[in-house]
Amino acid sequence: MVNKQSKTKRFGILTSGGDCPGLNATIRGVARAAMDKYGMEVVGIRNGYRGLIENDTQLLSRDDFGGILTRGGTILGTSREKPFKDKDWLSGEKNSAPELIMRTYEKLKLDCIVVLGGNGTNTTGYFLAKEGLNVIGLPKTIDNDIVETDVTFGFHTAVGVATDAIDRLHSTAHSHNRVMIIEVMGHKAGWLGLFAGTAGGGDVILLPEIPYDINSISKHLVDRANAGKNFSIVVVAEGALSKEEAKLDKKEFKKQREKSSVSIGYRVAKEIEEATGLESRVTVLGYLQRGGIPCAYDRVLSTMFGTYAAEMLFKGDYGKMVAMRNNVVEGVPLELVAGKIKPVPLDSQLVFAARQVGTCFGD
Amino acid sequence: MVNKQSKTKRFGILTSGGDCPGLNATIRGVARAAMDKYGMEVVGIRNGYRGLIENDTQLLSRDDFGGILTRGGTILGTSREKPFKDKDWLSGEKNSAPELIMRTYEKLKLDCIVVLGGNGTNTTGYFLAKEGLNVIGLPKTIDNDIVETDVTFGFHTAVGVATDAIDRLHSTAHSHNRVMIIEVMGHKAGWLGLFAGTAGGGDVILLPEIPYDINSISKHLVDRANAGKNFSIVVVAEGALSKEEAKLDKKEFKKQREKSSVSIGYRVAKEIEEATGLESRVTVLGYLQRGGIPCAYDRVLSTMFGTYAAEMLFKGDYGKMVAMRNNVVEGVPLELVAGKIKPVPLDSQLVFAARQVGTCFGD
Amino acid sequence: MVNKQSKTKRFGILTSGGDCPGLNATIRGVARAAMDKYGMEVVGIRNGYRGLIENDTQLLSRDDFGGILTRGGTILGTSREKPFKDKDWLSGEKNSAPELIMRTYEKLKLDCIVVLGGNGTNTTGYFLAKEGLNVIGLPKTIDNDIVETDVTFGFHTAVGVATDAIDRLHSTAHSHNRVMIIEVMGHKAGWLGLFAGTAGGGDVILLPEIPYDINSISKHLVDRANAGKNFSIVVVAEGALSKEEAKLDKKEFKKQREKSSVSIGYRVAKEIEEATGLESRVTVLGYLQRGGIPCAYDRVLSTMFGTYAAEMLFKGDYGKMVAMRNNVVEGVPLELVAGKIKPVPLDSQLVFAARQVGTCFGD
Amino acid sequence: MVNKQSKTKRFGILTSGGDCPGLNATIRGVARAAMDKYGMEVVGIRNGYRGLIENDTQLLSRDDFGGILTRGGTILGTSREKPFKDKDWLSGEKNSAPELIMRTYEKLKLDCIVVLGGNGTNTTGYFLAKEGLNVIGLPKTIDNDIVETDVTFGFHTAVGVATDAIDRLHSTAHSHNRVMIIEVMGHKAGWLGLFAGTAGGGDVILLPEIPYDINSISKHLVDRANAGKNFSIVVVAEGALSKEEAKLDKKEFKKQREKSSVSIGYRVAKEIEEATGLESRVTVLGYLQRGGIPCAYDRVLSTMFGTYAAEMLFKGDYGKMVAMRNNVVEGVPLELVAGKIKPVPLDSQLVFAARQVGTCFGD
Repeated sequence: MVNKQSKTKRFGILTSGGDCPGLNATIRGVARAAMDKYGMEVVGIRNGYRGLIENDTQLLSRDDFGGILTRGGTILGTSREKPFKDKDWLSGEKNSAPELIMRTYEKLKLDCIVVLGGNGTNTTGYFLAKEGLNVIGLPKTIDNDIVETDVTFGFHTAVGVATDAIDRLHSTAHSHNRVMIIEVMGHKAGWLGLFAGTAGGGDVILLPEIPYDINSISKHLVDRANAGKNFSIVVVAEGALSKEEAKLDKKEFKKQREKSSVSIGYRVAKEIEEATGLESRVTVLGYLQRGGIPCAYDRVLSTMFGTYAAEMLFKGDYGKMVAMRNNVVEGVPLELVAGKIKPVPLDSQLVFAARQVGTCFGD
Repeated sequence: MVNKQSKTKRFGILTSGGDCPGLNATIRGVARAAMDKYGMEVVGIRNGYRGLIENDTQLLSRDDFGGILTRGGTILGTSREKPFKDKDWLSGEKNSAPELIMRTYEKLKLDCIVVLGGNGTNTTGYFLAKEGLNVIGLPKTIDNDIVETDVTFGFHTAVGVATDAIDRLHSTAHSHNRVMIIEVMGHKAGWLGLFAGTAGGGDVILLPEIPYDINSISKHLVDRANAGKNFSIVVVAEGALSKEEAKLDKKEFKKQREKSSVSIGYRVAKEIEEATGLESRVTVLGYLQRGGIPCAYDRVLSTMFGTYAAEMLFKGDYGKMVAMRNNVVEGVPLELVAGKIKPVPLDSQLVFAARQVGTCFGD
Repeated sequence: MVNKQSKTKRFGILTSGGDCPGLNATIRGVARAAMDKYGMEVVGIRNGYRGLIENDTQLLSRDDFGGILTRGGTILGTSREKPFKDKDWLSGEKNSAPELIMRTYEKLKLDCIVVLGGNGTNTTGYFLAKEGLNVIGLPKTIDNDIVETDVTFGFHTAVGVATDAIDRLHSTAHSHNRVMIIEVMGHKAGWLGLFAGTAGGGDVILLPEIPYDINSISKHLVDRANAGKNFSIVVVAEGALSKEEAKLDKKEFKKQREKSSVSIGYRVAKEIEEATGLESRVTVLGYLQRGGIPCAYDRVLSTMFGTYAAEMLFKGDYGKMVAMRNNVVEGVPLELVAGKIKPVPLDSQLVFAARQVGTCFGD
Repeated sequence: MVNKQSKTKRFGILTSGGDCPGLNATIRGVARAAMDKYGMEVVGIRNGYRGLIENDTQLLSRDDFGGILTRGGTILGTSREKPFKDKDWLSGEKNSAPELIMRTYEKLKLDCIVVLGGNGTNTTGYFLAKEGLNVIGLPKTIDNDIVETDVTFGFHTAVGVATDAIDRLHSTAHSHNRVMIIEVMGHKAGWLGLFAGTAGGGDVILLPEIPYDINSISKHLVDRANAGKNFSIVVVAEGALSKEEAKLDKKEFKKQREKSSVSIGYRVAKEIEEATGLESRVTVLGYLQRGGIPCAYDRVLSTMFGTYAAEMLFKGDYGKMVAMRNNVVEGVPLELVAGKIKPVPLDSQLVFAARQVGTCFGD
C-alpha cells in the first residue's frame, strides 16, 4: 500500500568517504521504504559529493536494489570529495563546489539529499543544510567514532574481521614463541582496537585515548614470558600514540608522524624488540576491514537506519542524522554531529572489563 | 595487583540449561577478575544445579581458564536440572534437591554461587536466594528472551549462524523456483527469527508474537511469483503459531502441538504448498545455532558481564542478575527476572523496519 | 586475441539436477573462454533440459557472466527434468521430450550443448549424443559420485559446510554428555560423509558402502563412555543402511524405506538410544550443503573444467565429459559415464586412515 | 586391537619451519595410529630440530592428542633451526648440532624420528638419514613447493584465507575505482598466488615462474579501465619478479631486493601508479595465511598422511617422505626431495585456464 502524497517526493542518495560494509543494505532500506511505501523517486548520485558537483546522477528503479542486502561496497560508488574545502569556495569565487552542488540539487528538483558517510560526510551535510538544502545523514563508519549515536553501521563487521585475524595469529604466535602485533584501523578513535582486542583476547591493546609508555608494555610482556606464556598478542589501533607524542601539539605530532616511513604497528614492534629482546612480527590488517559481506548485526542496523531515513523523508524531518540512542532509532540535529569525533571514554566499562581479565593498555 | 580482603572469598560457578556460545568466555571473565584482582577462590560446579545437588565440584586454578575465550560449549558441563520441581521439595520430604543444594553450599563454605543460564536458571537462582543463598545470575541464551536486559550473550552468535544459513538457502531457492522454509530456534520468543530473518532478507518471517494467517502468507508468496520473483525465503521461529492456535488456551495448545509429529517448519511448508501450489523445502537449523565459537560481539559482552559479576562478588552485591541496560552493565534484582520471558514488543522498531522493506509477517 | 573460425560456432549451455556450488563459476569458465578467445556465441538454456524442451532460451552477452565466479546457485536455473523417461518417448509417440529437444537444437542452429550436471544429466547427455546431438558434459555434484573423474565440482564446498557443522556440534555434544548425530547428503555414495566425518573427527561414520551393525556402533559408543569420553559424534550419510537392509533386493529396500516416516539419521538415533541408553540428538543438514559461495578449491576446479570444455568446443571434441584424472583435466567418453555411480571403494586409503585414528564404521 | 611387536617401538616427532595449518591434525594421525594400533611410544620433541639438539623432549600420552584435530599451530612448537648449517659441523668441530642430534637420538633409544616440515626440514631429514638415523618426512607447507608430492598439507587452508581476502577487496576496489594489490605468500613458488588469484578472480596474477613486464600489466589495466571496468585486482606472489630481475644472477638479485625497503606488493603498486596513473592500494596478507583452523581438505590430507607415516614406522620403511601421488598416498625417498623446490610448471593447465578467463600474468 503506497501512501499518496500531493506531489511525488524525489530525493538524491549518495555514499561518501571510505568503503564500509552495510552501505548497500542501508541504501536498500531507504529506497525500498521510500519507493514501495511512499511512492517517492530515488536519484542515485555517483561517487559521493563529486556526483552532485558533476551532476553524475541517475533515476533509479526498484530493480537497482535487488539482491544488494548482502553485497559489500556501494552500488553508488564513493569518493573523499570535500566540497567546502574547495579553494574557490574559500576565496568566494564563482562555480565553487558547493555552488555546483546546489545547482544540481535544484536542477534535479530534489526535495532532499540522503548522505551516507562518516564524520566528514555528515559535516558536509550540515554545511549544505546551512546553505538551505534539505539533508538527512546516515552514520556509516567502521570506526564507530560519530557522536550522538551509540553505534554506526559497518563497525561490527570490521570488529568481526579483525577478531578473526587475531584468532589466526594466536596459533602462529603460540607455535613460534613470538610477540604478534596486529595493527587495526579506527582512525583517531580506539573503538575497533578495543572491541577486536578484547574479543580476540589481546594481551596488550594500544588506543589513541590511552597514550602508551613502552616500559609499561615491556614489563607486561616480560612478566608473561617469565610466567611461562610463550607468546603475546599486541593489538595496535592505527591512531595509537605514546605518552611523549600525546604532549605534542597537533601540528608537530602530524609532522613527526609524516617523517616516519613505517606505520605505528611496525614502530611498536621495534620498540618492543629493543626493550624486551622478544622476537616480534607485524600484521597490518588494512583494507580487509572495509570490504566484504556485512555481518548480521550490521544488516539489521542498516535496515533500521535506512527505513527510518525514509520516515524522515516522508515527514519532511530534515537537517538530522539517523542515530541509535539507548536502543531507539531517532534523528539528531546535524549541527550536534558536525565537526566532532567520539573517542572511547576514559571511564569506559569495556576498558575496565578488559583490564580485569588481564589486558595491558600500556599506561 | 590483588585487592586484599580480610577473608578469602570463595564462590561456586555453574552453567545450566541449553548450550550457548559465550559460556566459557563469561566464565573466564568472572574467574580471571575474581582470582587475579580480588584473590578469590573459584569452585567449579559440574553439570549445572545437578553438580550442587550431588556435590560434583572442584576447586579451580587459573590454568583451567586458559584459552577458553573462543571455545564453544562450557568447560563446566550443563544440565536441565530444575531443583524446585523436585517432587520431594513440593511434598515437603527431606533431602529434596533444594535442600541438597543448600547443604553443598554450606559444606563448601561458599560466599555465593554464580549461575549462568536463561530464564529457568535465573528463576531457580531467585528461589535459592529466597532460601537464603547468595546468588548472582548471568543472562545466557540464544533466545534473547530474558527481561530487564537489552541483550543476552549467545544471541548474536546464533543470529549469525542462522543468517549464514539463510544466505546459503537463497542461492538454492533461486536456482529451483522454490519456497525455502527455514525453522530457527528462539523458544517462545521471536528475537532470533526476527533478527536472522531481517538480516537474511526473509520474504516472510513468522514469530510467536505475531500469529499468522496462512492466507496472508499465501497472498504474499503468490504476489511475489506473479511479479516475476522465482523464489521466496520463509523464516519460521520455532515458537510461531497460527491465529487459530493463538486463541487456544495454553494447555490445549500444548496438547495439539504434541499430537503433531512434525515441527512447525514442516507444517508451514505443507500449508503453503496446499494454499499456493508452490514447491517448498524445509531446513530445521537445530543444534548448529547453539554450538561453536562465539562471535566477537558475544565475546565482548561475555567479558563485560563476567567481570561485572566479579565486581558484584567483591562488593557483596547479591541477589541480582547482571544486565545490559541502555549500554550500561548493571545488576537487576533476580526478583524482577524470575518467571518472566521477554517477547518481541508489538511496537518493535525492527518489525516496522522489516515491514518497510517488504517483509510479510503473516498478519 | 580471438581465434577466427570460418563460421561462428554457437552452443547452448544448461544446468540440470540439484543445486550445487560452482555452477556459475563453471558457466563463467566456458563462456569467457568461448566468447573472448574463440568468438563463439552462447545460448543460455533455462531450467535444465526443460528449457530445451520448451525452447526457453536466450542469446547471452559477456555482461551476463560478470561477477558470477563467487555466486552460489545457477544463473540459468535448473530442473530435474528427465526427457528420456517421458512416456511419449517410451511409447514411441510423437512430440516426446527428446524430440522437442532435438527440434530446439536444430532451430537454434546449435553446434553443441554443454550440460552441467550429475549422473542423470550426463546420462541424458549420452542419450542425446546417441541421437546425433553434439554434447559436452561437466561433472557437477556435491556427492562426488561420478565415475571416470577423481573429483566433481561442488564436492569440496559441501564437505566444508558439513565439516563446519560437525565442528559446531562438537561443543554442544561436549556440554551435555550427548551423542550428536548429523545426517549429511551424498545420495547413494558415502564420499561426503567420509570426508566431512574424517575432517570433523567423527567417532562413528556410517556410509552406504559399509552396511552397519547397530551392535558394533553401540559397543564403540559405550567403550568411549566407559573410557571417560562424555560425548560422541555420529556422522550418517543419507544413503547409509544396515547389514539387514543390505541383504534386501533394491525394490524391497526402497519399499521399506518409503514406509519409514523419518530419515536415516533419526532412525540411527533411535537405534542408538535403545541399544545404549545414551541421550542422542539429530541434525539433518539438508539444503545448506547445496547453497552458498563455492570454496576456493571449487572455483579453481570450475575454472579449469569450464575452460577445458571451451577447448573441446573449439576442437569439436564432442560426446565427452570433462574430467580430472590424476591431476590432469581431460575428456572421457560419455558412454563410460552413463548410468553408473562411483561408490567409495572398500580398499579406500581414507577409510583405512579414519579407522587408524579410531573411527568406527559400524562394521 | 593393538598389533604386538617383539619390542615396543619408540619414535620422536617434531615440527620445523614456519607455522602451517594441519600440523596438529597430522601429529594426531601419526600418534593415534602408532599408539592405539601398534602400541608404540611417542616422544614429543620441542621446537623442531632445536629440541633434538638440546634434548628438550617428553614422552607423550594419548591425552596429549585430544581435541587437536582442528587446532591451528603446533602443540610441539617449531623453530627454523638448520643443524647442518652449524659452523662447528662445517668446520668439523666437536659437539656440532648434528652430533648433538644423534646423541639425543641414541640417548632416547629412538627407532625413528618423524619430521613435519617443508623443503628445509625434509632436506635436514635426508642429511640425518645419511648419517644413519631412521627418518620419515611429512610434507608441510602453505607454499605447496615440495617435489614428488602433488600437494602438501596447509596449502589449501592458505588458499582459502587468501581467497577470502581477495573477495573482501573486490567490494572496496569496486567502490573506489581503484587497483587493489594483494601480496600473498608462497616463498619462491607461485602456487598460492596462482590458486588464490584464480579462485578470487584476480585480473592480474604475478608469479615467480612468469617474470613480469610492467608494460604488459599496465596495458591490461588500462584496457580494463577503457572498457568501463572501474577496478582491478592484482595478486602478487611474494616471490614475483620482473623480467629484468629474472636476468640477474641469484646473488645480485638477492642484493638488490635487500636494498629495497618495501615488499614486492608495494613496488608493483608504485610501478602501476607511475605507468597508468590509476590509484592503487596494497594489502600484505602476511601471517594470517599461516594460522588458524585447518580447512576440511587439509584435515583429511593430514589424517591420511599421518596415519600412513605410522604404517611406515610399523614396517620400518624409513628414509622416505610421505607423499600424495596421483591420488595415492605413498612414500618417496628423501633423497629425491632434498634440496629441491617445485615451481609451477610453465605448461600448467591452471595457468592456461586462468588466461582463458582473461587473467593477465604480466608476460
